[in-house]
Amino acid sequence: MTDFRQPGVPARALMPTMSEPRRRRGAERTSHRGPAAIPQLPLRCVENPYPPMQLLSADQVEAIHEASMHILENFGIEVMSPRALSLFEKAGAEVDHATQNVRIDRGLVAEALKTTPSSYTLTPRNPARTIHLGGNRINFTLVAGPPNVHDMERGRRAGNLRDYADLVRLAQHFNCIHMIGNQVCAPIELPANSRHLDTYFANLTLTDKAFHVSAIGRGRALDGISMMAISRGLTLDQLAEDPGVTTIISVNSPRRFDDMMAEGLMTMAEFGQSVAVTPFTLMGAMSPVTLAGALAQQNAEALFGVVLTQLVRPGAPVMYGAFTSNVDMKSGAPAFGTPENTKANVASGQLARRYSLPYRTTPGSASNAADAQGAWETMMALWGAILGHGNLVYHAAGWQEGGLTASFEKFIIDVEMIQHMMEFLRPIDVNEGELALDALGRVPTGGHFFGEPHTLERYATAFYQPLLSNWQNYEAWAEAGGLDATARATRLWKKALEEYVEPAMDLAVREELEAYMAKRREEIGQGEP
Amino acid sequence: MTDFRQPGVPARALMPTMSEPRRRRGAERTSHRGPAAIPQLPLRCVENPYPPMQLLSADQVEAIHEASMHILENFGIEVMSPRALSLFEKAGAEVDHATQNVRIDRGLVAEALKTTPSSYTLTPRNPARTIHLGGNRINFTLVAGPPNVHDMERGRRAGNLRDYADLVRLAQHFNCIHMIGNQVCAPIELPANSRHLDTYFANLTLTDKAFHVSAIGRGRALDGISMMAISRGLTLDQLAEDPGVTTIISVNSPRRFDDMMAEGLMTMAEFGQSVAVTPFTLMGAMSPVTLAGALAQQNAEALFGVVLTQLVRPGAPVMYGAFTSNVDMKSGAPAFGTPENTKANVASGQLARRYSLPYRTTPGSASNAADAQGAWETMMALWGAILGHGNLVYHAAGWQEGGLTASFEKFIIDVEMIQHMMEFLRPIDVNEGELALDALGRVPTGGHFFGEPHTLERYATAFYQPLLSNWQNYEAWAEAGGLDATARATRLWKKALEEYVEPAMDLAVREELEAYMAKRREEIGQGEP
Repeated sequence: MTDFRQPGVPARALMPTMSEPRRRRGAERTSHRGPAAIPQLPLRCVENPYPPMQLLSADQVEAIHEASMHILENFGIEVMSPRALSLFEKAGAEVDHATQNVRIDRGLVAEALKTTPSSYTLTPRNPARTIHLGGNRINFTLVAGPPNVHDMERGRRAGNLRDYADLVRLAQHFNCIHMIGNQVCAPIELPANSRHLDTYFANLTLTDKAFHVSAIGRGRALDGISMMAISRGLTLDQLAEDPGVTTIISVNSPRRFDDMMAEGLMTMAEFGQSVAVTPFTLMGAMSPVTLAGALAQQNAEALFGVVLTQLVRPGAPVMYGAFTSNVDMKSGAPAFGTPENTKANVASGQLARRYSLPYRTTPGSASNAADAQGAWETMMALWGAILGHGNLVYHAAGWQEGGLTASFEKFIIDVEMIQHMMEFLRPIDVNEGELALDALGRVPTGGHFFGEPHTLERYATAFYQPLLSNWQNYEAWAEAGGLDATARATRLWKKALEEYVEPAMDLAVREELEAYMAKRREEIGQGEP
Repeated sequence: MTDFRQPGVPARALMPTMSEPRRRRGAERTSHRGPAAIPQLPLRCVENPYPPMQLLSADQVEAIHEASMHILENFGIEVMSPRALSLFEKAGAEVDHATQNVRIDRGLVAEALKTTPSSYTLTPRNPARTIHLGGNRINFTLVAGPPNVHDMERGRRAGNLRDYADLVRLAQHFNCIHMIGNQVCAPIELPANSRHLDTYFANLTLTDKAFHVSAIGRGRALDGISMMAISRGLTLDQLAEDPGVTTIISVNSPRRFDDMMAEGLMTMAEFGQSVAVTPFTLMGAMSPVTLAGALAQQNAEALFGVVLTQLVRPGAPVMYGAFTSNVDMKSGAPAFGTPENTKANVASGQLARRYSLPYRTTPGSASNAADAQGAWETMMALWGAILGHGNLVYHAAGWQEGGLTASFEKFIIDVEMIQHMMEFLRPIDVNEGELALDALGRVPTGGHFFGEPHTLERYATAFYQPLLSNWQNYEAWAEAGGLDATARATRLWKKALEEYVEPAMDLAVREELEAYMAKRREEIGQGEP
């Protein structure tokens, strides 16, 4: 088996010795899930039962739509892919092959929106972990893409497979994380052209949740699709009817889709897998300094990518992705969890719904530490994501330093904040039992409800039980070491890794995955995947 | 002048030497407000332009209303004040003098609600600081009531006048704090029966903002009312027509108004000053373990207090106060910023609006430190307060340890979070200039907007500029000491105290206040105020 904890050793080198997955069973499992286990919410689909917040009036939504149509019809988008240019040309777009500029009209956009699904599912190898994208459903994902990793004991370091494995184990362990993002960190000790195989393998063996595949080029996308198909025992055709993976297509804003991302997008659509087209529109840098302008640009770029998915395969599952924040205008540094970012998270949901598309959003933070700033910035943007009815809340746990570091402590803090939000979204019950008039009439004035039957029947489950929040009084807390939330988070991620149980996988499936990887490593060699 | 910085010395002892307020002028002021000054939002009325969130259906609101009427009509409220009992009896309530139980029917509630104002103002000595309570206006206050004070350099200590003065100076300095709560800490070195005079004097001389007066008995309330009247050069009759102070009446839940609070409430109403009737309904302890039951109890207790204000003086300004959170059912410890607390903050706004009453709410935290937990708990409950259309967001800055400590660092963190919220609430402009189509057409694909005229014309004010958030990259941040948000907050409150400018007060007014205090100290002697 791949020993993901052994530092500096590529998974590949260990593959010949792979046999049985390391996992706990029976009594050992029980002992780890006993009363001392970290409390957490059960696995459940999260729904937002309340109407989305409307930051934009209907007229403002239309004005932004109109501006984005103006961008698509008059300015166009650069697409650095001959195959994509050809698809657009066939569909009647105005294509300038010299500049690779593509102008599409609103008719083509409307045509594409006729075939986009308003909701769909992603089914991983464990069908109980199926995620629903669309409507009022919400899914939270592990952070994706940081080059670095940080925890309070070992400090900051470059991404590596051991940390990668531990971080996806944490994502597996906590029920509120519904999906693994694309490479929670870059395992830089592995060859760049094949490390995606190792990370897919880690996602598939250490977790049984849906995951994001890299769409930097056709090969990486197809490898992820193929390995998900193997893990579910499906052919690629069968997987196309019941998708299992998604990718994010990060537009090179302003107005450019590069070759690798365009190829990745088309490959995902070709095989019926999900794409979230996500312009990264940092106001003042890659987009206008104004929210209206940035949203117009975001809308044009997102819809352009949506059109491309439908040109490849009508009905292909696709999300409206939005990641609009601002920069620090003194330094150009990106900022997240700002008021502007939060507003964009809400308003972008209004745009996504105008087109009946599932909505991907993100709660980020620029903080360099898992501190109070990390908490308030992520919480701000998370509220924006929730009030905007985000269906896929990407980078929801572990994001630090504006996405440059995956933080173990921030992961735990984010899980706590996500669980707070999940519980907030549970509707208030009002009925005879909940109104408690019997108890209210019985408890004397100035008395207390601790001993009431109404209380005793309900107290064990009445309130959300936090994993990280500390409710001790000051003296007890100080006596116990006076640890702040960040220090307590260190204890918790270590405990969660101890409690973690690797999900079982049939040996035959594992071997088929390994065989696929071996074949692909040979094909790739030192070339491009 | 009172030297509030001198530890352990009662203001009283220093009074004979008082002459001129210590404040900076002219050049010195300019130097302190130069480019290096802490950035902050300008003084403004905060409005929430969006509809309030509806966590309860209209039917659920009515069911809670009905349950609260059942409580008032059948169970009654204990009122430990002969004067209040007499008022209720005259109004037709069923009064049991042996148990001091008062049952009122819905007709009496409806009658009272005919004369309650749906909005009103509190005008402090500086009319520019007038606060508007009602409608979609939001006002944030300094924490009130903690016995302790904490900062990261000096640690935790009992409340004292020097810290009191520094904390109200901070509240004065930051524009987003609209009101001073009741005793930001208890100055325990001063005599308990007259320290309210010293704290009112500090509020009036170190700030020019509205403040909360203690309503623990008639004397403390009337002293606050009188000193506000003196500071504005008004008679008590004139002040009644244009109120300047408020109090919070904390009900002794369940269903009890003690003598001191009832007297305080009646005194405030008698003199036309504002009262926020606020049951402190900790679910599972002082109220049912269920949210519906706690809200029904809260509603009954709040409306009961509202009725009493109108029996004293029809038209007296009164707020619907709500402070419903839960306890840790394992220890009984109070918790704040929980999902349940956040839901209560939203739902209580629905109840307040059912009665057209201004709404007082609170964003608390149970954290023992100014850490990530402090941030996420306060941010959770703050969103509840905002989405619930709180008009008075009480304890909004500096609250720590469930209200047992006023924290200097948490104050700064809270100011940052409040400012984030204020900026979030600024509507998105969508017009030709904001849509930026000229710039969008001009910037090449893959280019950037930094140098665009559209950007240059707007960048200085386009985005919220934080005071505490750090947006440096990791290397620069680490090089500068790698301070987390809490450590940076220490620097900021110290800098804010340096920048603080004491608002001018006419010497005649100050002398009148001092004379009032001297007279009252003699009257009080060692007895009750």
